[in-house]
Amino acid sequence: MKNTKIVLIGAGNVGTQLGRRFHEVGLSVLEVFSQKKKKAKLLAQQIGASASNDLSKISSKGTLYIIAVHDDAIAEVAKQLKHLDNGKRLFVHTSGATPSTVFKGILKNYGVFYPLQTFSISRKADFSNIPICIDTKRKKAFSIVEKLAHQISPKVYSINDAQRAILHVAAVFVNNFSNHLFYIGENICEKERVDFDILKPLIQETAAKIQAKPAHLMQTGPAIRGDEATIKRHLNFLENYPAYQELYKMLTQSIMEF
Amino acid sequence: MKNTKIVLIGAGNVGTQLGRRFHEVGLSVLEVFSQKKKKAKLLAQQIGASASNDLSKISSKGTLYIIAVHDDAIAEVAKQLKHLDNGKRLFVHTSGATPSTVFKGILKNYGVFYPLQTFSISRKADFSNIPICIDTKRKKAFSIVEKLAHQISPKVYSINDAQRAILHVAAVFVNNFSNHLFYIGENICEKERVDFDILKPLIQETAAKIQAKPAHLMQTGPAIRGDEATIKRHLNFLENYPAYQELYKMLTQSIMEF
Repeated sequence: MKNTKIVLIGAGNVGTQLGRRFHEVGLSVLEVFSQKKKKAKLLAQQIGASASNDLSKISSKGTLYIIAVHDDAIAEVAKQLKHLDNGKRLFVHTSGATPSTVFKGILKNYGVFYPLQTFSISRKADFSNIPICIDTKRKKAFSIVEKLAHQISPKVYSINDAQRAILHVAAVFVNNFSNHLFYIGENICEKERVDFDILKPLIQETAAKIQAKPAHLMQTGPAIRGDEATIKRHLNFLENYPAYQELYKMLTQSIMEF
Repeated sequence: MKNTKIVLIGAGNVGTQLGRRFHEVGLSVLEVFSQKKKKAKLLAQQIGASASNDLSKISSKGTLYIIAVHDDAIAEVAKQLKHLDNGKRLFVHTSGATPSTVFKGILKNYGVFYPLQTFSISRKADFSNIPICIDTKRKKAFSIVEKLAHQISPKVYSINDAQRAILHVAAVFVNNFSNHLFYIGENICEKERVDFDILKPLIQETAAKIQAKPAHLMQTGPAIRGDEATIKRHLNFLENYPAYQELYKMLTQSIMEF
């Protein structure tokens, strides 16, 4: 198998972390595209690639085009890459929320390369612990993304569109919604002038426990104990936070029903 | 200051972890009480203490009695320790949900020694990262619990009843409710036959990010982006999970409002 020649479309959180990781493990990225030339250059310089902000002139030397742009821009980017589509070049997106069929009728040889993690540009991603969920339309293309995925992470999963959609919903619960609950805790502490730092080890441990044991065995608190007195006291306190009070009621009920 | 002589009332999750930690740092626990003699013995043996299941005969040699029992049993235990209350012995409970005034009118010299963490008997607690929230009725007694707290953890906070009540509500959001969201993610994956392990690194990272940055800066996902298409797709999928669909709606709305 020849070496995969990567062209990276997108220099946001995912594009940046992927690009840096490819570079780190000795894979060469030929070119980085971003609509903002400055952003493309910033990443390109870090990983020894050229930079571009013009899709019509993007390098044709790539064998794998990784499209790491906002979900709603994927189809449009695919259309602008149509001139490169010779059936041999492979095009993948990195989105958890978008089916691979977004490419259908636009490109021939496509797939998904989805690193399931929450990324920030400023925080180094630990790829040794990031599952890469891969899928390709053609069986033949699968080994290319599979090999690439294994080069950046030990955790590689074959995940089709239906499975990825499920993972994405579940991820909203465990990541987006949890973070919102962390925010609520933070907000209450801030308003009441209590140091939120005191709760941070608890957050860490709550997540750590889940790594080893099923969540339903780890449930604690007044709701699962049916501790009505504490629940009532909490609801009284939350009179000043009506939106949080509603969430408290609903989540408590949900825990009790389970 | 003489050495504190500890008597531990309760051999559940908190009592066990505290007892082991005291022993680990070279503090002696004189006696362990549990209603179940077997449980008292189990812990007592590990930490070189005697075991008791009779509060009327509990060792009178203690200078600090740590009451680590269920919230609703604290007052009753306090009453049964009344014969030891000479104004010198100090009595503290370990509850986040219970005001120190639970002791008022029962004991003279009391306070709170609250390790803010989620404990299991089977999982070794890392006290180097567990905040100890302390409070005493008498100023003079404060230095005793403060010294003890510093011997088992570098993180010691002076937290009064009002502040602890706030921390406890916030803890329900960041710990109990988050764990429930983890459970929902786990449950969806299980029912749809997708490997929940794929989401575990995401859970870990969600909690890790919060250690360094404010939660509101870390919020991602369809709700904060106002990504109606994805939200609609998720809600459609959740038609089969009406209770989760309701929670999804409510949490999405809450994120949007913020």
